[in-house]
Amino acid sequence: MRDVAVVGVGCTEFGERWSASFRDLFVTAGTLALEDAGISGERIDALYVGNMSAGRFIEQEHIGALIADFAGLATNHIPSTRVEAACASGGLAFRQAVIAVASGMEDVVVAAGVEKMTDVGTGVSVDTLAGAADREWEGFAGATFPGLYAMIATDYMHRYPLTREQLAEVAVKNHENGSKNPIAQFQNRITVDTVLSSSLVADPLRLFDCSPITDGAAAVVVVPLERAREFTDSPVRVLASAQASDTIALHDRRDISTLDATVAAGKRALERSRLTHRDIDLVEVHDCFTIAEICAIEDLGFCAKGEAGRLTAEGVTALGGDIPVNPSGGLKACGHPVGATGVKQICEVVTQIRGEAAGRQVDAEIGMTHNVGGTGATVVVHILGA
Amino acid sequence: MRDVAVVGVGCTEFGERWSASFRDLFVTAGTLALEDAGISGERIDALYVGNMSAGRFIEQEHIGALIADFAGLATNHIPSTRVEAACASGGLAFRQAVIAVASGMEDVVVAAGVEKMTDVGTGVSVDTLAGAADREWEGFAGATFPGLYAMIATDYMHRYPLTREQLAEVAVKNHENGSKNPIAQFQNRITVDTVLSSSLVADPLRLFDCSPITDGAAAVVVVPLERAREFTDSPVRVLASAQASDTIALHDRRDISTLDATVAAGKRALERSRLTHRDIDLVEVHDCFTIAEICAIEDLGFCAKGEAGRLTAEGVTALGGDIPVNPSGGLKACGHPVGATGVKQICEVVTQIRGEAAGRQVDAEIGMTHNVGGTGATVVVHILGA
Repeated sequence: MRDVAVVGVGCTEFGERWSASFRDLFVTAGTLALEDAGISGERIDALYVGNMSAGRFIEQEHIGALIADFAGLATNHIPSTRVEAACASGGLAFRQAVIAVASGMEDVVVAAGVEKMTDVGTGVSVDTLAGAADREWEGFAGATFPGLYAMIATDYMHRYPLTREQLAEVAVKNHENGSKNPIAQFQNRITVDTVLSSSLVADPLRLFDCSPITDGAAAVVVVPLERAREFTDSPVRVLASAQASDTIALHDRRDISTLDATVAAGKRALERSRLTHRDIDLVEVHDCFTIAEICAIEDLGFCAKGEAGRLTAEGVTALGGDIPVNPSGGLKACGHPVGATGVKQICEVVTQIRGEAAGRQVDAEIGMTHNVGGTGATVVVHILGA
Repeated sequence: MRDVAVVGVGCTEFGERWSASFRDLFVTAGTLALEDAGISGERIDALYVGNMSAGRFIEQEHIGALIADFAGLATNHIPSTRVEAACASGGLAFRQAVIAVASGMEDVVVAAGVEKMTDVGTGVSVDTLAGAADREWEGFAGATFPGLYAMIATDYMHRYPLTREQLAEVAVKNHENGSKNPIAQFQNRITVDTVLSSSLVADPLRLFDCSPITDGAAAVVVVPLERAREFTDSPVRVLASAQASDTIALHDRRDISTLDATVAAGKRALERSRLTHRDIDLVEVHDCFTIAEICAIEDLGFCAKGEAGRLTAEGVTALGGDIPVNPSGGLKACGHPVGATGVKQICEVVTQIRGEAAGRQVDAEIGMTHNVGGTGATVVVHILGA
């Protein structure tokens, strides 16, 4: 296995992109990533793309070929492969790109993620997203994602010391970070009171506990470490890639407040990189809901179970804290174009390690990403370092 | 890169499986493959699954996790990844499994393919399949897959010497082979007259020129060659894996009667295996329509452009011919559960090389598979040998 590095990153603006199509979004992100790596499309050997549900959002499958074609790469007949694991699709696309380069099979590989969610109404969106859960045992019974994460929050708050105010602090912190991120869907600061006075979605989760429906795309260029200096003066190494699965339905889990796949993927990533938690300078976690960030911090092992709420309220996970969590603004403030999110996390960690994160810059040499599909049936964790 | 071998294969019966769910299908195929490899699920390190459009066929995404869960593998939290490239999804799942093992990342990997197509009506099926083509420039204009392949057939018959009767011989031969395959959806022999008197679907293609709507699943177990004898006395080596893309829309191609992605993937596979066409004893090609088999034989280089119709009518591609094509019965007679087809092709070649194909056995040491997405926007070719 060869060492692998990221040499280019690019993200569209995330948001309700009424004037951009699915195709516009991934072409924009891909072009930004290629410009960042200083290369043209002819140098690309293969493409992996993460997308959850273009079949239902825009009635289009065969996304790998579509992207190769509209990015102008079909003339070279390069391999282009879509991977899907619901909200973890982007993280898996990056992982497949890393495997392709590490194996020696390919040299210059682009991993992209894209989702265009606003071409359908809210009802179709919510039902499409329910396809990430167990359709037969959850979706058909009426469970939606806010409902499932509300069950996690209810169970968690029953068992561990987490106040409603502490939970709101996750959203407050992520909006603060998003206010410093030019691609974020929401760049406005909020207060605990904003969260607590927002409409109830699924008790105890309120509107500002939930990540939004978003259009967007992200792309990164991955090469063998030994060739990285051909492309950039600031390559960022992939120190570990780990993926884990769990039951697709929440009710089949050993413990619904602990995402065992997060625990497994996090442990494997640290083992493979031979690092400890103290080596990690920042982490982008999958905060599809505020409770998801609380669980992620704990299940990745940054603190004991039941402590993340207090630590968040104390500022430990803020930009200036001991372990900055979601400096990008996370899914909450950046928005969550499902297939793009996992790749955007990689973009953020690379940008931070390069020292190019401007107003949201943290002191970072090593960063972690954590991307979740469904309620934790797929988790993929990456560690990247200077 | 390590050498890779297939040590277990399993297929469900293909057909209108009213009494089996999506989950039943893949569990059945997976169990057969594990039994064939003589192992239990705990030995599996990772899973790749090919599926085109469960999102629209059964409103379920996140297929990797679903399969890991219902196959009883979620407790080990193994990585499980869905790949999608329309009708080439199965071939790509196998390819990703091969890359995972070749890279040294994983040891025992299952590649599966599954599609459950009969839970929706014909209108939804046809529209869902149109998602494999260019939705904006083909689907929205009313193009369906029979229509697109009819354009290929019309162009081909205008330029090359192919009679309507020769085209029908493809279906006659594949039904003859299917009659000897216990998993085939159609096990009845037909004549040229059956094809010519069947209803017109899209001129010049008639009902018996078209592969059917099918439910089914297939799975294979892939391991490093050096460990293959732990599992079986008859491992089959993966001699080459090659994938190519092309424009998603037919009208953007250089030549609509030549699938350039087939040409590219076929050439790459032969180069990587250091074999020539004379070394290949059988080939499973993607005959979604009879014209597709004609093009495939030529574009893979088994004969010159314009010759495949005559050779088919002369019996060169029959079981006893110089180059048996689709001994399984192909998509035409086996049926075409979209995501499963590419893996079923691998199962057939492995079964043939092992000498276990009973009434449809050909004299085979080396075989090729050819799996196409859409009208040729993705093509994946594998070569396997004893």
